[in-house]
Amino acid sequence: MKQIIPPQSGVGFALRAGQRLVVTDPEGQQVADLFCFSRADPSDALSSGRSIDYNDTILFTTGHILYGQSGRGMLKIEADSLGRHDFLVTPCSQQMFTMLGAEGYHPSCLENLERSLARFGVNTNQIGTSFNIFMHVAFDEKGRIAVKPPLSRAGDQVTFLALQDLFVGLTACSDEGTNNGSCRPIHFEVVQNVPI
Amino acid sequence: MKQIIPPQSGVGFALRAGQRLVVTDPEGQQVADLFCFSRADPSDALSSGRSIDYNDTILFTTGHILYGQSGRGMLKIEADSLGRHDFLVTPCSQQMFTMLGAEGYHPSCLENLERSLARFGVNTNQIGTSFNIFMHVAFDEKGRIAVKPPLSRAGDQVTFLALQDLFVGLTACSDEGTNNGSCRPIHFEVVQNVPI
Repeated sequence: MKQIIPPQSGVGFALRAGQRLVVTDPEGQQVADLFCFSRADPSDALSSGRSIDYNDTILFTTGHILYGQSGRGMLKIEADSLGRHDFLVTPCSQQMFTMLGAEGYHPSCLENLERSLARFGVNTNQIGTSFNIFMHVAFDEKGRIAVKPPLSRAGDQVTFLALQDLFVGLTACSDEGTNNGSCRPIHFEVVQNVPI
Repeated sequence: MKQIIPPQSGVGFALRAGQRLVVTDPEGQQVADLFCFSRADPSDALSSGRSIDYNDTILFTTGHILYGQSGRGMLKIEADSLGRHDFLVTPCSQQMFTMLGAEGYHPSCLENLERSLARFGVNTNQIGTSFNIFMHVAFDEKGRIAVKPPLSRAGDQVTFLALQDLFVGLTACSDEGTNNGSCRPIHFEVVQNVPI
């Protein structure tokens, strides 16, 4: 059953090994930050550095595996209609918005991930670099990065296969700048268990 | 006083706010992995994702600040005679060497960081993407990465200013492949407290 993450919010849920998570951008140009932990050992969190190292890439798409800090595979990207995501930067945060000049409170992916994952016993400092679905971070040969409008169009989707039991946090990104000016919803679906 | 890290080993030490850490490659083409934690809150570890986000770069040199997960600055690069380091990949590990075909035990930066930081109460899964001084990770426009021989020559050095009290782990990298075929020592020096 498809579920909706309203703009600037997030959800947390358990994903069993063999289940598939399908994340859809229903309107286009909307980013979804994903972070996860091993259910068997919640100190084992998603690791961009391990994933970059073991896949020999900073751009992830179909066939790549997202690893935890321990080096155990967590999620395999089984299908990807877009092919451009980010695994370099941390979720947007109140601190980031304040640095960028926001006055007062601004919803953020970090807050939404914290809230969504809190019931699984996770603390803020464990939420590191997220896999930022549909996010377009450009980089040049000098290493400079720039956040560009997402390349996703309505209906673009990514399917992840869970390689172990996980606790997952997933957001509809709260940063207007990242999402080409306005924040929209994200759809997701957990496809029931298939033995792996 | 200059101290020597023998090949394929590591050290752990406390660094006070205002102290400077000078890391030197005495022979050339030798990588040193650095990881650190906030002394005030050891759950706050070095974060490549936060650092990439807040500096708008994946290549770090003089003037850049390395941030912790909380977004507090940890180390500022004050001087850098080389200008090419890595902040994308996790430390080499027994698992990585096994994946690459090694039979049996191989020393690794992850093991050396674990050992060096254990007395500060840090556990393995908290040791994420290290700042890999002198490491040369090339990347192309498709995001593919490749570990190349370090560009450092004998005497190249990097000076870090501590922006808060830290626990630091530092290695002479154990991976022959990363260090152009053989593993050499690293020198470092902690320059005593200067008010910041």
